[in-house]
Amino acid sequence: MTIRALVWGENVHERENAVVAGVYPDGMHNAIAAALNEDDGITARSTTLQEPEHGLTEEVLAETDVLLWWGHAAHGAVADDVVERVAEHVWSGMGLIALHSAHFAKIFKRLMGTPCNLTWREAGERERIWLTSRNHPIARGLPDHFELEQEEMYGEPFGIPEPMETVFVSWFQGGEVFRSGATWRRGAGNVFYFRPGHETYPTYYDANVRTVLRNAVHWAHNPAARVSGVTDAPNIPVEVALEPIEARGPKLHADGEEGFR
Amino acid sequence: MTIRALVWGENVHERENAVVAGVYPDGMHNAIAAALNEDDGITARSTTLQEPEHGLTEEVLAETDVLLWWGHAAHGAVADDVVERVAEHVWSGMGLIALHSAHFAKIFKRLMGTPCNLTWREAGERERIWLTSRNHPIARGLPDHFELEQEEMYGEPFGIPEPMETVFVSWFQGGEVFRSGATWRRGAGNVFYFRPGHETYPTYYDANVRTVLRNAVHWAHNPAARVSGVTDAPNIPVEVALEPIEARGPKLHADGEEGFR
Amino acid sequence: MTIRALVWGENVHERENAVVAGVYPDGMHNAIAAALNEDDGITARSTTLQEPEHGLTEEVLAETDVLLWWGHAAHGAVADDVVERVAEHVWSGMGLIALHSAHFAKIFKRLMGTPCNLTWREAGERERIWLTSRNHPIARGLPDHFELEQEEMYGEPFGIPEPMETVFVSWFQGGEVFRSGATWRRGAGNVFYFRPGHETYPTYYDANVRTVLRNAVHWAHNPAARVSGVTDAPNIPVEVALEPIEARGPKLHADGEEGFR
Amino acid sequence: MTIRALVWGENVHERENAVVAGVYPDGMHNAIAAALNEDDGITARSTTLQEPEHGLTEEVLAETDVLLWWGHAAHGAVADDVVERVAEHVWSGMGLIALHSAHFAKIFKRLMGTPCNLTWREAGERERIWLTSRNHPIARGLPDHFELEQEEMYGEPFGIPEPMETVFVSWFQGGEVFRSGATWRRGAGNVFYFRPGHETYPTYYDANVRTVLRNAVHWAHNPAARVSGVTDAPNIPVEVALEPIEARGPKLHADGEEGFR
Repeated sequence: MTIRALVWGENVHERENAVVAGVYPDGMHNAIAAALNEDDGITARSTTLQEPEHGLTEEVLAETDVLLWWGHAAHGAVADDVVERVAEHVWSGMGLIALHSAHFAKIFKRLMGTPCNLTWREAGERERIWLTSRNHPIARGLPDHFELEQEEMYGEPFGIPEPMETVFVSWFQGGEVFRSGATWRRGAGNVFYFRPGHETYPTYYDANVRTVLRNAVHWAHNPAARVSGVTDAPNIPVEVALEPIEARGPKLHADGEEGFR
Repeated sequence: MTIRALVWGENVHERENAVVAGVYPDGMHNAIAAALNEDDGITARSTTLQEPEHGLTEEVLAETDVLLWWGHAAHGAVADDVVERVAEHVWSGMGLIALHSAHFAKIFKRLMGTPCNLTWREAGERERIWLTSRNHPIARGLPDHFELEQEEMYGEPFGIPEPMETVFVSWFQGGEVFRSGATWRRGAGNVFYFRPGHETYPTYYDANVRTVLRNAVHWAHNPAARVSGVTDAPNIPVEVALEPIEARGPKLHADGEEGFR
Repeated sequence: MTIRALVWGENVHERENAVVAGVYPDGMHNAIAAALNEDDGITARSTTLQEPEHGLTEEVLAETDVLLWWGHAAHGAVADDVVERVAEHVWSGMGLIALHSAHFAKIFKRLMGTPCNLTWREAGERERIWLTSRNHPIARGLPDHFELEQEEMYGEPFGIPEPMETVFVSWFQGGEVFRSGATWRRGAGNVFYFRPGHETYPTYYDANVRTVLRNAVHWAHNPAARVSGVTDAPNIPVEVALEPIEARGPKLHADGEEGFR
Repeated sequence: MTIRALVWGENVHERENAVVAGVYPDGMHNAIAAALNEDDGITARSTTLQEPEHGLTEEVLAETDVLLWWGHAAHGAVADDVVERVAEHVWSGMGLIALHSAHFAKIFKRLMGTPCNLTWREAGERERIWLTSRNHPIARGLPDHFELEQEEMYGEPFGIPEPMETVFVSWFQGGEVFRSGATWRRGAGNVFYFRPGHETYPTYYDANVRTVLRNAVHWAHNPAARVSGVTDAPNIPVEVALEPIEARGPKLHADGEEGFR
């Protein structure tokens, strides 16, 4: 059975900006999904901000193993309840891959708990992406470094929590560096941030970038069934304690009462 | 110069529940502050939910090095804008120590990006707290284990992101375990969670617990000045790039334009 | 293609101690290999200390995806050059699973860089193993906790570096706790430590333990080809620098010279 | 009371290479110690490879809070028993700061458990060191980036275990990047690696580098008394178990017997 990937695209600049429309005539989300579908082990679909509930209904998420997210101009247009729904699916085991300007997506900031800010420059400069560790699953099949001749610069300090692993570090022609590939786990969900992908450049047609995207989907996939009740905080009555104990001392809660939240 | 600690107390059960009022007649926050003030290197004050802006104005936070947070019944009564203000201070360098039921405090969940849930039982059972690493700054002066004869049980799985360090692990009489002391960094701010402290038991009078609290304040203290503009994402114009480059390729942003958020 | 697992057994107590021989008549290594072979995706063999080069020749390791290690009485009998050979294979991508008393195996200490010590008691007491995170790949299919009615106790502090992830924490009847499942990455190699498995108890026949072993093999497997030259530190001559630079300033090394080690 | 720092210098090139002798006429170790002694809170001494026991006797280490290590040409000349003695002091609470080519020092590799290799080029190129996180204790008082006009290049992949924190990342003129500042904890000891410091350049006279060195000494300092018996693995007899239990089941060890190592 293949991994079910869903590429979420903001789908704004592709429709409103001639440059972006020229580079990605079918939308960035579809270019990314096409890269994933080159892998026999992945079945990728796409959806957009403009769909009802941004295309991220409970039913859709329940059938998604790994969600990829590209957004830039319209982060604020994403409904908070949809963000929370996606977060619950991540905690329950859905993988999430945040791409480029999705460092400021609500869902990424929600899961990180930090500002996720950075410095930036749109000058079409050279980016060279270095592996920190050969043969990390996300770097499988890649050379020690690869280049994107024109990209937007993102510079440190990058306002993220210390990653579980820093997989890629970028060198920029203008003098900056950036932790371009980083992993975290949030509950049962694997989260990966991957920096490249400014909409005015053909980054998602680059062979190495496409390899990273496919590798990342495999890495982020948690094959176990979604965790149920992922935010529950159940009371364990004394009568069913694993070791025999007797209640003693003063109590705040009456028997069987729910805890405070 | 001493470290300026501020103990934030929800201050509900102390006023409404006779048992809690009996254990902490001056309020839990003041018992905790008293523990801190036994250390010549710390000056601790307290404030409560009931104060205007919950006692956490911009002015107060600017003069706080380390904030300790105890809440339980009224997490939902804390205003969201105050939570966001506290988060910004943490990212900028203020330490945060979340105590016991503050695992469900808005500010803790905001910084963790996870549900922060657990299992629980209020049976006055024995808790034994073990060090994972001797002489961690937060464990300084402690024996390898210490006991609280009566405590509420919190059990794994605990819905937190993997800590930077797991400092304490608890054994419970009824058969559970819990990662009772854990650290994270969020921006320039150090965050520590410490499990014990159910309001119906005299936990905050325990000598070892008080040692942990004082150690944690020292550990969480970042002596540098608060980071300014901690959520800024500045554009770095090509003209001031550190290495000489020339802009090339298509652009989305006009010169000097702000980025999207 | 299946994952090629190799179970390394010290194979001392099984031959010298009647109790252990009674529990594991074919040797512990073969009991463990049998557990792995219940998984269609794994092909497990075993080898022992008594084989030439302890059964861990270059050829054998080159054909091993994941190595499991059980040793206790004869850690000192393992040749240092074999340990170093195994370490290089781990750095190059071979998975390593250290079992129970292998916390003191030379190879585990070599990879951790710490004492790996603990407290212990052989009293046949109850151990209850808790998940810290549901649906971690190593915990797939497990309940939130499971019990081993008789096990040796290992207690904190456990002298390991902070794990990448603490997957399991054990509760012991006598009052201790232990981080019983922990992961690290060392180069391209995934390392997992799993606590249970004292030789006088039938632990490796327990269904949950066997599930962990199989899960861990899948988790530890790095499908990429072994990294070559994993300890090399190549000089990058100025003539082939990725960006054009000219050598300047004083030099210590003549052109083309090897670096110091 | 001030922090007692000890700067260990290999002291080979300063005596044998005219260029290095010209830059560091009193030896690199003394230049580094002088930088530390500008801080009223630090008292720094130095010692060298050529001293009996390389100047690292039990007595000297017992009076050292933080050890800084610079070596390059003579890593192999450091006696293994001295390395092990230093490792035990680190586990017990002594801080260790490994400088530049000390990535290949026996003590650093011993504590990391990995090859610690990298790529390199001695071309006097520009290095720009970026902070990943403002106001990390080691980055206190530093700008977001600073430059060293001439340095040796070290490039990724850097064969280290994932750091607790990646504090600095370097940009090199020739196109490489490097994780130039990284922290780990090993037992009670704090370990920091700092990249710059090639012996033919005046790096240790740079004001920002000197700030890092002083900050790092403060960060690495563990004020608690050294942990005793840091490699012990004590048996906890059933008679003194914290919870009353009775021994049951088969045993391998006679009462009071030492464990295997």
